[in-house]
Amino acid sequence: MKISIIGVGLIGGSIALKLKGKKLVNFIYGIDNNKDNLKEAIALNIIDEEADLENGIKNSDLVIIAIPVDAARNILPKVLDLISESQTVMDVGSTKSGIVNSAKNHPKRSRFVAFHPMWGTENNGPKSAVAESFSGKAGVICNHEESANDALELAKNIIESLDMHLIYMNAESHDVHTAYISHISHITSYALANTVLEKEKEEETIFQLASSGFSSTVRLAKSHPEMWVPIFKQNKENVLDVLNEHISQLRKFKAALEKENFEYLAELIENANKIRGILDKN
Amino acid sequence: MKISIIGVGLIGGSIALKLKGKKLVNFIYGIDNNKDNLKEAIALNIIDEEADLENGIKNSDLVIIAIPVDAARNILPKVLDLISESQTVMDVGSTKSGIVNSAKNHPKRSRFVAFHPMWGTENNGPKSAVAESFSGKAGVICNHEESANDALELAKNIIESLDMHLIYMNAESHDVHTAYISHISHITSYALANTVLEKEKEEETIFQLASSGFSSTVRLAKSHPEMWVPIFKQNKENVLDVLNEHISQLRKFKAALEKENFEYLAELIENANKIRGILDKN
Repeated sequence: MKISIIGVGLIGGSIALKLKGKKLVNFIYGIDNNKDNLKEAIALNIIDEEADLENGIKNSDLVIIAIPVDAARNILPKVLDLISESQTVMDVGSTKSGIVNSAKNHPKRSRFVAFHPMWGTENNGPKSAVAESFSGKAGVICNHEESANDALELAKNIIESLDMHLIYMNAESHDVHTAYISHISHITSYALANTVLEKEKEEETIFQLASSGFSSTVRLAKSHPEMWVPIFKQNKENVLDVLNEHISQLRKFKAALEKENFEYLAELIENANKIRGILDKN
Repeated sequence: MKISIIGVGLIGGSIALKLKGKKLVNFIYGIDNNKDNLKEAIALNIIDEEADLENGIKNSDLVIIAIPVDAARNILPKVLDLISESQTVMDVGSTKSGIVNSAKNHPKRSRFVAFHPMWGTENNGPKSAVAESFSGKAGVICNHEESANDALELAKNIIESLDMHLIYMNAESHDVHTAYISHISHITSYALANTVLEKEKEEETIFQLASSGFSSTVRLAKSHPEMWVPIFKQNKENVLDVLNEHISQLRKFKAALEKENFEYLAELIENANKIRGILDKN
């Protein structure tokens, strides 16, 4: 099988690297507006050849769209226009309602499988790609009933090849859940970084004192706006709901401290400790 | 040299493990109200022998206090009462003004060195102790001018044996900086865990979807209230200042989203990205 990957960055590159080791895939075209990314992806042996959109798609059984979610939403109808009924398209975006809606009334909607691999890092570009990234993580297919059986079958083979466990979910539920378990983490991390940068103008002190706990909570604050602004934009309502809830949770800590109600503070912390049971299962 | 460690938990245990491999220390007494901790510490070869406070101190050149910061503050004057002018006492607490003040007018104040090793995890107990935890991290000595030269010299040898790099700081500055780079991280992590737990009553969904980014930002939410309530209590004013700043930073993200001002959102994120330069130096 030949595939085209539109966007050979962190996610597209990691998928390519992993699939190259599998019998399922024997040739990978890279399609990217960023010529440096393409060069790098070839040098790193992530893709076999670069292609333009038309030629890449024409020669591929499967097209994987791995660009920021707003661009993905825009390009999907164009990709569907170009494919035949025997080709399949997947995306990898972190928000799913937008892209599903963008294809909703397309005559070739059933050739599209809305996919979200639950993995990412704060890094970008083909050089950050890691073949084993996806192993053991969740691979979510949204609105599978809108996809043709053979397209779905192909997508399932790909997800299996990525060593992910498959979950079905509707796009709206997906976007609520990811607001809670991914999007808000990024906002708190960004806000935490800005909090520290605001006050600690003497970078040297942060540099000297910063402990592993700090690095862990602000790691996501390294993530680029090119990827994350579109995600927040597309998932605005859910992200705002969660952000409001998060601010109100922070206010409980504030109230407990202001009122010196340390029993309540301990209760808040004990409740938070329950997350251990959930994380440790992972 | 013989040392006594009061509190053979994560930090006390890790210090003991590391120092056991060094010529400097040839015998370690463990002092702990928790008999299970003592048994475990002996079984794990972390301490050589358990002792009560009086006997442990009497036989030691150095006493390291490694219990929660409120308990440490209470016990320090008692420990200073028990030692001679040739013995030294260190603590390892995450807040420093409180403990420094508790010893301020003690006739043997100069035997005490206020120390904070900038390392910790969300785990507790001797079983979590790791010998190499401290390597390359900052070891902060506060108000060194209040310590006797020989006590300071001994503390410096210990910090060197832990492979930490030494920083001097006054206790008040320390407590401001740690509010920013450690204490607030814990509060955001707790609040994030509570936000998710509040809405995601179906744990299974979090379990299935939770990605590495989520785990990273909520990792600290596993940290126990026994350690953290006293830290927030002792550093209340600084933590509240930072918490207010953090909430106002989060409100900027909220405003940007509500007003669909995505340029501003990108600016906020770009600013947060500057943390990369600081983290990557570490």
